[in-house]
Amino acid sequence: MTRLEVSHDDLFGLHNLPYGVYSVDGAAPRVGTRYGEHVVDLAVLLGDDVFAEPTLNAFMAQGHERWVAVRAALGEALGGEVPEEAVHDVGTVALHLPFEVADYVDFYASEHHASNLGRLFRPDSPDPLMPNWKHLPVGYHGRSASVVVSGTDVIRPSGQRKGPNDPAPVFGPSTRLDIEAELGFVVGVGNRMGEPIAAADADQHIFGVVLFNDWSARDIQAWEYQPLGPNLGKSFASTVSPWVVPLLALDAARVPTPKQDPPVLPYLALDPPWGLDIDLEVEWNGDVVSRPPYAEMYWSPAQMLAHLTVNGAPTRTGDLFASGTVSGPDKDQRGAFIELTWGGRDPVTVAGAERTFLEDGDEVALTATAPGADGSRIGFGEARGRVIGSK
Amino acid sequence: MTRLEVSHDDLFGLHNLPYGVYSVDGAAPRVGTRYGEHVVDLAVLLGDDVFAEPTLNAFMAQGHERWVAVRAALGEALGGEVPEEAVHDVGTVALHLPFEVADYVDFYASEHHASNLGRLFRPDSPDPLMPNWKHLPVGYHGRSASVVVSGTDVIRPSGQRKGPNDPAPVFGPSTRLDIEAELGFVVGVGNRMGEPIAAADADQHIFGVVLFNDWSARDIQAWEYQPLGPNLGKSFASTVSPWVVPLLALDAARVPTPKQDPPVLPYLALDPPWGLDIDLEVEWNGDVVSRPPYAEMYWSPAQMLAHLTVNGAPTRTGDLFASGTVSGPDKDQRGAFIELTWGGRDPVTVAGAERTFLEDGDEVALTATAPGADGSRIGFGEARGRVIGSK
Repeated sequence: MTRLEVSHDDLFGLHNLPYGVYSVDGAAPRVGTRYGEHVVDLAVLLGDDVFAEPTLNAFMAQGHERWVAVRAALGEALGGEVPEEAVHDVGTVALHLPFEVADYVDFYASEHHASNLGRLFRPDSPDPLMPNWKHLPVGYHGRSASVVVSGTDVIRPSGQRKGPNDPAPVFGPSTRLDIEAELGFVVGVGNRMGEPIAAADADQHIFGVVLFNDWSARDIQAWEYQPLGPNLGKSFASTVSPWVVPLLALDAARVPTPKQDPPVLPYLALDPPWGLDIDLEVEWNGDVVSRPPYAEMYWSPAQMLAHLTVNGAPTRTGDLFASGTVSGPDKDQRGAFIELTWGGRDPVTVAGAERTFLEDGDEVALTATAPGADGSRIGFGEARGRVIGSK
Repeated sequence: MTRLEVSHDDLFGLHNLPYGVYSVDGAAPRVGTRYGEHVVDLAVLLGDDVFAEPTLNAFMAQGHERWVAVRAALGEALGGEVPEEAVHDVGTVALHLPFEVADYVDFYASEHHASNLGRLFRPDSPDPLMPNWKHLPVGYHGRSASVVVSGTDVIRPSGQRKGPNDPAPVFGPSTRLDIEAELGFVVGVGNRMGEPIAAADADQHIFGVVLFNDWSARDIQAWEYQPLGPNLGKSFASTVSPWVVPLLALDAARVPTPKQDPPVLPYLALDPPWGLDIDLEVEWNGDVVSRPPYAEMYWSPAQMLAHLTVNGAPTRTGDLFASGTVSGPDKDQRGAFIELTWGGRDPVTVAGAERTFLEDGDEVALTATAPGADGSRIGFGEARGRVIGSK
């Protein structure tokens, strides 16, 4: 037995305790938590085989009461003597996609982002926001199979694009490859068909939060997206962080959303709608180029889940819904390069070079922190990916 | 042992042999084929436990060579003496969702349908088709969890709608509930990330074909769909037929698609692009109201799969892509009621009553037949659903 010492200031201290899936030396993946610089095996620590699984899904499906109980047990166990065989150094393990993704939906919940994209994609439109935007959280389904864990290379997608002066579309590797800095929300327990989730009950269903990079090929997207929305411009890769921060760890990070005006319909009403005070950072080849504030998001996670199910659509354990790009009001708070460089017009300086969109070899990492209990701060790890050329 | 007599004229004769999942008296679901009025258990018939599974996924994942070999073995076995314990009367079994749906994508491959919808949704636009429509098969991801098997009741969805004269959106049960008569294509073996499927190889990946009803709430859809495409207007339910007709059974049904002009980009080119000569019927409360011809579809299944993966997006065993509404050039060939009634303006007579959209208690069944080998005809069973009121 051993005692693990982790400082109160650590981003992975006792008030975080995220869940992930790790393996050592090619052995079967298992569920662990991160505690300081340690990865602690939960099946060994808590003597429960639900954590000897290669994904979090079985545990998540056990429901909110179990999540509360396990979190309490975990905090207690890590405060005492821990079996040495449960403990690994975080640098010695491989981290895997922590959950099997069921359906994946991407929202568009930042007013700043939606307005910026409206101005860029529809410059002739009098209002950058569509008439529906403040009445419902706009979202669309994406490709679950393309969700990969941090560290996975992103292959530059090829596809059709057509510039305004091209007589016909051309085919080739995307020339406007971009990121979207988002948060993803993992559904632990879904709803049956025909039984919507009330906004007030959403936190009984949302298990946790991950960082999410919705890699986007803007040239492919601009040509394909009307009238049925983005498809190939988004479906090639989406990167999640390996640690799922429990929603239970984020009580201290809850803040009201910005004022919602006009008032929302009753099924979206919460008093107040709670957002999350999570500070993101976007690192491009080692330079921080943006600091998007999640607290600025117009639509709350609970509203997104309530909307997603209000028509009776079922959700399942492992459903993932993402926020859409997190952008704040300031230029250096924009979570996509198309906004940050205003469609490529205003380059940014990255590691000493003028840059607009992603080049082969570029690496992007999203990180974030949030207030935790007792004045602590909570880390989310990172969602990192490197762009490699088309095959 | 027993010998099963099924006539050459039967829609489920020796040249069809679709795959499904059945159960008897609440026992565990298993894989069977339909042969005439019989359901034949494949694990018993062929002595292979891959068919003792509750879905087709394990078998589909074995790949094209196995599909060919099993189909040959099946034809031979059913021509001879069959173990009696393998045989059930089709009226005595329960039929289940035949495969676990991985990602689901819905295309928009009928020029007639896309033109009609363009005229109805964007009446002020000079061209009913978007500029991209003839260059790429437009499609979007939908909700896999909402795919249900024929016979499952469809709960009328509630949601936001806003008429052109409404000052603000209102919430309530959809008042414009519709169907879309489609075919669905089931991917047996997918592709790895970064390795697109060539159009010429698509038939090595497509396992089979199902009937598909993409139930659609037009009022919800019209208000929500800009700019990211349909979401709640479609995500509440999609009905598939219980029998997956193997693509191998449809050689005689292959026909060239309508001429594609302008020429498509090389990754979509096939010589010729093969469509399928499948005749659908839409039955509304017992009346056939439409006979959509699949042979009229502009984009072929192989082109849809090639497009879906050309950006490197991975597909998996159980991926489902649907054609979009099948509509022909004639009014009584339109596969959605919004087209058939021109947005509700021109009611149709159904069981003696004037009707536009679906009312509670209405039942819709899709059926289809296609040419099979040796002058036979192949049936697809049915995709049936009854509308019940919102809870």
